Amino acid sequence: MLNESILIDFYEFTMAYGYFKQGFKNKIATFDLFFRSFPDKGGYAIFAGLESIINYVENLTFSREDIDYFREKKIFDEEFLDYLNNFRFSGDIYAMKEGSVIFPNEPIIIVKAPIIEAQLLETFILQAFNHQSLIATKSSRLKESAGSKLLIEMGARRAHGSTSANLGARAAYIGGVDATSNTMADRLYHVPAMGTMAHSWVQSFNSEYEAFKAYATEFPHNSTFLIDTYDTLKSGLPAAIKVIKEILIPADAQSFAVRIDSGDLAYLSRETRKILDNHGLQACKIVVSNALDEYLIQNLLNQGAPIDAFGVGERLITAKSDPVFGGVYKLTSLENEGKLEPKLKLSENPNKMTTPGFKNIFRIYSEGYAQADLITLHDEIMDPTQPLTIFDPIQPWLQKTFESFEAKPQLHPIFKNGNKAYKSPSIDAIKSFKNNSLNEFWPEIKRFYFPHQYHVDLSKSLWELKQTMITKAKNLNR
Amino acid sequence: MLNESILIDFYEFTMAYGYFKQGFKNKIATFDLFFRSFPDKGGYAIFAGLESIINYVENLTFSREDIDYFREKKIFDEEFLDYLNNFRFSGDIYAMKEGSVIFPNEPIIIVKAPIIEAQLLETFILQAFNHQSLIATKSSRLKESAGSKLLIEMGARRAHGSTSANLGARAAYIGGVDATSNTMADRLYHVPAMGTMAHSWVQSFNSEYEAFKAYATEFPHNSTFLIDTYDTLKSGLPAAIKVIKEILIPADAQSFAVRIDSGDLAYLSRETRKILDNHGLQACKIVVSNALDEYLIQNLLNQGAPIDAFGVGERLITAKSDPVFGGVYKLTSLENEGKLEPKLKLSENPNKMTTPGFKNIFRIYSEGYAQADLITLHDEIMDPTQPLTIFDPIQPWLQKTFESFEAKPQLHPIFKNGNKAYKSPSIDAIKSFKNNSLNEFWPEIKRFYFPHQYHVDLSKSLWELKQTMITKAKNLNR
Repeated sequence: MLNESILIDFYEFTMAYGYFKQGFKNKIATFDLFFRSFPDKGGYAIFAGLESIINYVENLTFSREDIDYFREKKIFDEEFLDYLNNFRFSGDIYAMKEGSVIFPNEPIIIVKAPIIEAQLLETFILQAFNHQSLIATKSSRLKESAGSKLLIEMGARRAHGSTSANLGARAAYIGGVDATSNTMADRLYHVPAMGTMAHSWVQSFNSEYEAFKAYATEFPHNSTFLIDTYDTLKSGLPAAIKVIKEILIPADAQSFAVRIDSGDLAYLSRETRKILDNHGLQACKIVVSNALDEYLIQNLLNQGAPIDAFGVGERLITAKSDPVFGGVYKLTSLENEGKLEPKLKLSENPNKMTTPGFKNIFRIYSEGYAQADLITLHDEIMDPTQPLTIFDPIQPWLQKTFESFEAKPQLHPIFKNGNKAYKSPSIDAIKSFKNNSLNEFWPEIKRFYFPHQYHVDLSKSLWELKQTMITKAKNLNR
Repeated sequence: MLNESILIDFYEFTMAYGYFKQGFKNKIATFDLFFRSFPDKGGYAIFAGLESIINYVENLTFSREDIDYFREKKIFDEEFLDYLNNFRFSGDIYAMKEGSVIFPNEPIIIVKAPIIEAQLLETFILQAFNHQSLIATKSSRLKESAGSKLLIEMGARRAHGSTSANLGARAAYIGGVDATSNTMADRLYHVPAMGTMAHSWVQSFNSEYEAFKAYATEFPHNSTFLIDTYDTLKSGLPAAIKVIKEILIPADAQSFAVRIDSGDLAYLSRETRKILDNHGLQACKIVVSNALDEYLIQNLLNQGAPIDAFGVGERLITAKSDPVFGGVYKLTSLENEGKLEPKLKLSENPNKMTTPGFKNIFRIYSEGYAQADLITLHDEIMDPTQPLTIFDPIQPWLQKTFESFEAKPQLHPIFKNGNKAYKSPSIDAIKSFKNNSLNEFWPEIKRFYFPHQYHVDLSKSLWELKQTMITKAKNLNR
């Protein structure tokens, strides 16, 4: 098993070699990681993946076998291979906290390091950010629709490989689910794993009654009977009720349920509830699963389906409705004669131009809510004693003034000079932080349809820098 | 780093414990892995993931820490924990070869093993099969549309975690792409990695001319200039042409190209080709990238866009248009009094009923083409001296008779009594096998729109067994 250091696009190495040979080795650069739009046309996203990125950066080295591999390519010289052989990250990383509510066009992570080092981090940082933020965001949407109902991630079998299953379950837990089916996610990341039976268990006995009885005998305090193997209402449910009365109730079971995994879940859950209640089994919970997502859950609850828990599989673990989180990593400044010189990438589309310079972000709070994120130059200071006017960076005539506000910096030092400068919270602390953070926003950003658009603006200094650079670049290329 | 043994849904362990306590420990079961429909409404799929499954089964053990974890759950007894502690897979596995063309409702993998062992394989086998077959199938579709043009997988940064990037690149290579951007996929699986420069390289110099010149100086024999950082036709391309003439041509470079990563790729590639040709640079290739998939590539080529190579990122590595491959793993028989007794799962939907019994598959060839896959009982023998009549399992009056045919068994022993019984081919052998296999089919199955539906039928004996069992189960549950 290789470590994951070498999960790097090959062009990072060709560029690294070019920088090395061209004397850029010690030139400090800054790169911003940001994204341009939300998946699922949502109104917010949740940042996850920081912990993976920290582990990666701390362990980033190249093995002798890696060096041999590069030597065989016959395009790099020995001096460069020696540089790779001794490689350690020596720069600074700033990032928002894992679990933060994040918005387009703001730097979630900033890397400030010798350009080769910053470049070699690109591939891993992006995939960790893109994957885990995608799943955390989807999971948060699911939690919005499920409300107080239990939500269980059960997508491992449809995941895109093992890290998709494991880190996907972790991101889902941060974002909103209460538990996972995946034992490895519990072992690795302390996401509580749970589960009871599959159809194969039911099929292994001569009848559903025998199957449920056998299970209840072994697990009298926590049984969930899967009742849709043959006929949910006519056969599965009556068998479950018989076993609940014969074994679970006498054993004083505190937690038991039936699970429905196919058919019309609104109808079947309602009928099941009625029949259970008629038998005095108000305590028996109803769990449903089968290709659920936030829209279906919302729809089931709107229909008044008496469901206590939802199992969510493939549509969460792959973020099926929109499986790409479009984070990018762009050069924003490069050292020239000892100073960081801002850098720009143009585009025909104004939304696709990068914002130059080494930056910071403040979240502006007023009247009890987060009102806007303000991107500033790195060393700008916010003065809360003066009114603050913010304006839209594309349509600057759209303005808003806060007479009183609080400005909280969002980027925290994660690495300083290559050393970790951050104490990673527990997963439960990250989950709480996510919940508290999301509560700071107007609920209108959480809508699935046409959510409110939260403001992400540039400070006046940063906006002017960008305009000047665009004008200059456009004139150069005319 | 844990090994991946514990990537198992928790309910497999509760069921395993139940089987263990109920005296099912040594009962042999058979499970079929199959899927019900193609992603993207396609006409075929490509099987990938066997190599991962073999590695998993060979290394499947539980560590002392795993056992401690289970003990802390306080739901398993010590005898069972001891069983897990000594766990090794002891059964048989049959599978189609990696790279095979596969169809719905046929068993791609059959596990025959003591039921606990077969059950514990479920989660990993499904995720490996589902993930890698998804990507191999998508990649094969991309290759169909790209034809002889070079196709490069470059999705690592948008992958769902590291295995999604690495095994995704491997599956993509089996399915059709020629290379990957991901160095780790080359190191792990020998998928050739390639790459040249990103926008950050271009931004790091004072002009595109300087950036390209610097790169060409370091890589005079293989440069691809990214020409869309500021203005593709007015600025990037002229700078590239200047450097090609000044450095690459004098260095006698055999391979050089320009890459366009934004804008209207049909228009820009045509204009770029014209300008390059006017400069006598017919040898300069054109590479394009930017959210490409099989439909966009087909569309670009239909427009006559003179493109030599396509880079495919997020839409391949996540299979964006349909990111779930719906493989399932169902119990088909269980030992009773020393004999395998077939098992069935009913459903209101006839397509969702399982097919009972321990099986085999023959691919029927006639008139130079694969004509149908025939699923039989495991010990059925095909007699090629007699005509063969096949029939649709749902509409059995739809029949077809082959007077002469060849029947090739598709399932191969991979494990016998827990020992590997299969020599894994090299990745290039798997890639060739995939290409040769796909050529055995009518090209009509490869269409993107309304592809021909290939026949997957049941032998008469198997069909009769299924009908009898359905009737019996329906009457039991009436």
